[in-house]
Amino acid sequence: MKHGCCERPMRTGTIAEDEHSVGIVETQYYTFAEPPEEMEFECGRKVGPITLAYETCGELNEDKSNVVLIVHSLSSDAHVAGYNSPSDRKPGWWDTMVGPGKAFDTRKYYVICSNIIGGCKGSTGPSSINPATGKPYGLSFPIVTIKDMVRAQKHLIDHLGIKQLLCVVGGSMGGMQVLQWAVSYPDAVRLVIPIATAARLNAQAIAFDAVGRQAIMSDPDWKNGEYYGEAIPAAGLALARMIGHITYLSDASMHQKFGRDLVGEPCFGFNIDFQVESYLNHQGDSFVKRFDANSYLYITKAMDYFDLAQEGGGNLQRALSVVKASFLVVSFSSDWLFPPYQSREIVTALRRNNKDVSYAEIHSDYGHDAFLIEVDALSKLIVSFLQYADYEREYADAAG
Amino acid sequence: MKHGCCERPMRTGTIAEDEHSVGIVETQYYTFAEPPEEMEFECGRKVGPITLAYETCGELNEDKSNVVLIVHSLSSDAHVAGYNSPSDRKPGWWDTMVGPGKAFDTRKYYVICSNIIGGCKGSTGPSSINPATGKPYGLSFPIVTIKDMVRAQKHLIDHLGIKQLLCVVGGSMGGMQVLQWAVSYPDAVRLVIPIATAARLNAQAIAFDAVGRQAIMSDPDWKNGEYYGEAIPAAGLALARMIGHITYLSDASMHQKFGRDLVGEPCFGFNIDFQVESYLNHQGDSFVKRFDANSYLYITKAMDYFDLAQEGGGNLQRALSVVKASFLVVSFSSDWLFPPYQSREIVTALRRNNKDVSYAEIHSDYGHDAFLIEVDALSKLIVSFLQYADYEREYADAAG
Repeated sequence: MKHGCCERPMRTGTIAEDEHSVGIVETQYYTFAEPPEEMEFECGRKVGPITLAYETCGELNEDKSNVVLIVHSLSSDAHVAGYNSPSDRKPGWWDTMVGPGKAFDTRKYYVICSNIIGGCKGSTGPSSINPATGKPYGLSFPIVTIKDMVRAQKHLIDHLGIKQLLCVVGGSMGGMQVLQWAVSYPDAVRLVIPIATAARLNAQAIAFDAVGRQAIMSDPDWKNGEYYGEAIPAAGLALARMIGHITYLSDASMHQKFGRDLVGEPCFGFNIDFQVESYLNHQGDSFVKRFDANSYLYITKAMDYFDLAQEGGGNLQRALSVVKASFLVVSFSSDWLFPPYQSREIVTALRRNNKDVSYAEIHSDYGHDAFLIEVDALSKLIVSFLQYADYEREYADAAG
Repeated sequence: MKHGCCERPMRTGTIAEDEHSVGIVETQYYTFAEPPEEMEFECGRKVGPITLAYETCGELNEDKSNVVLIVHSLSSDAHVAGYNSPSDRKPGWWDTMVGPGKAFDTRKYYVICSNIIGGCKGSTGPSSINPATGKPYGLSFPIVTIKDMVRAQKHLIDHLGIKQLLCVVGGSMGGMQVLQWAVSYPDAVRLVIPIATAARLNAQAIAFDAVGRQAIMSDPDWKNGEYYGEAIPAAGLALARMIGHITYLSDASMHQKFGRDLVGEPCFGFNIDFQVESYLNHQGDSFVKRFDANSYLYITKAMDYFDLAQEGGGNLQRALSVVKASFLVVSFSSDWLFPPYQSREIVTALRRNNKDVSYAEIHSDYGHDAFLIEVDALSKLIVSFLQYADYEREYADAAG
């Protein structure tokens, strides 16, 4: 590869030596205990018990007014920052943004990162055991929507006794959850930051999702989703991930990173020739070890179904008329999976409702993945957005 | 679908009624008869006999100076215009451009469309019988390059007794062949029209090809290419085609054509929900009936390996220094598989060599497929390019 990889840097020193790290973080699990124990899904079905995995860093202040909820994209998890164990070499997925002195400064904010239902990272999903059968749900798990994910997160926030979140932030599918939070629970969020996202996927993104699912479902090892305890549909899931990965990068970033560089001499056959092939294969293979194929189906379907305008009878402006939060909408110039015009649609709909919204399109060659990479630009925007909210509160307090 | 489909219109009247149709055309086959019967491939291996399928329309003039050679893209064939039988409802793949009164006016030009070696449309390729074993070659067929394809076409042109082609034209991979013709046989081509093409694929296009091949090779029915006479790797080939199809369209054209339209009520499962999914599935399924999976591997690899700059020791300008033809280079604004900047690279390299080159970027929402759809804009450019060549010749004749 010609340039640095976009993956998180490995730790070099000890965890204690890094004053900007949140250090060791333990994943927590909340199983909905209050009645009803079951959660009703948007499709009408009820399932329970439901567990959500989450992590927290920083300290909750007395009036519980310093909570930042981070929600994540397709394949991430609750482990947003720091390390789960002293032996971990890689920090959480947004460690660059969360920690002492970082954009979400944990000396000031109490950060919660919640996983999603339907996933496979500690929360209830198709690979969880169905108590009624003693076997994994598989495809008997109900279809999950973004609204369902957010409803489950609201249960968690209620359980933690938090009345209002200072901020909800997330990129990609995380941004969809952010938008849904603002619309579903207008009084529960003060600030929202949807990043590299859309109020609905366009046809091209739906098409890529559909092909990824087809890759999984065409794998004979998929067996209609009943592969648990047997061979997993590894080839199909790897393919789906490879397709996804192309859409997370950009023509320019792939050119900079790989160009037409070869792995070795041309094989004059069908083995791997180009660096870019090798990279994608590696991404596919490593994904298979950490992700459940059925969850991939459920989560991509949740993204396909998401259409915020439906909250307003098909009208996005009407859907957003109920929000009370201040918005910071961020897009990236080379993001062709969630193109900037989709962020502008959100901004326009908010402005027509006279809502408080700031918008920034960050110039970047990193494509959709930019939301994980453009740390400096993103941090500056977010810090100033959060600071202004502080100022506003002080002003209101003084006036009050 | 919201708007008209980009596929060729079906015939409504009889063939004879259409004065702009070339009518019935028979596919012809040329098996290299002159010694050596075998063709040496770029990889160093020799294979024979080699057959090329081709079709012709129009009439060859006395001095054989009115020949237009059309070369095709990945999945097309020699059947460029007209109908192979009276019962055919669909004409050839570029019927809109070839016929009496059309851009390649068959009252004036003798049009040859040559198929490619490595393919599965009547020319020798991996599904052909290896005379040494009596069985299909499968993966024992040598790796084919664009240069090999063009070398085989040169055999055909020599066989037809044509010293110089008036014009070589093609889009996508056809454009690669056009470029190779101009460089390999500078004296054999007067005019060349590379459309929606590149002097080499970028990393993103290589990545899509690699994932398509992986889809085929992951299909258990592929069996290392030895599936002939048994179940074919249909699921893998369909997937590869679906991936390809997304790259042939554009975000805008997919939005116009499908938007987020549903097939019916949401299935709340993993069946087809969106029109765009239905379209891609149809494209995949129908492709499987007409294309060989091994040929898909061979042809995409040929595209990946193609790098015209190698003819100039890695320098595109040097590679193009040998050409004698006049160029008309055409790209399309929304083509993200072969983006306009790649056409501009070719144009710049030609201009630095003081070659005769015209360039047009046609504004179109149709993505890469625009070269099959933007008939009016393309026809105007091509007709005037061919006319100017006539004028030049007359001028030279008068001066001479």
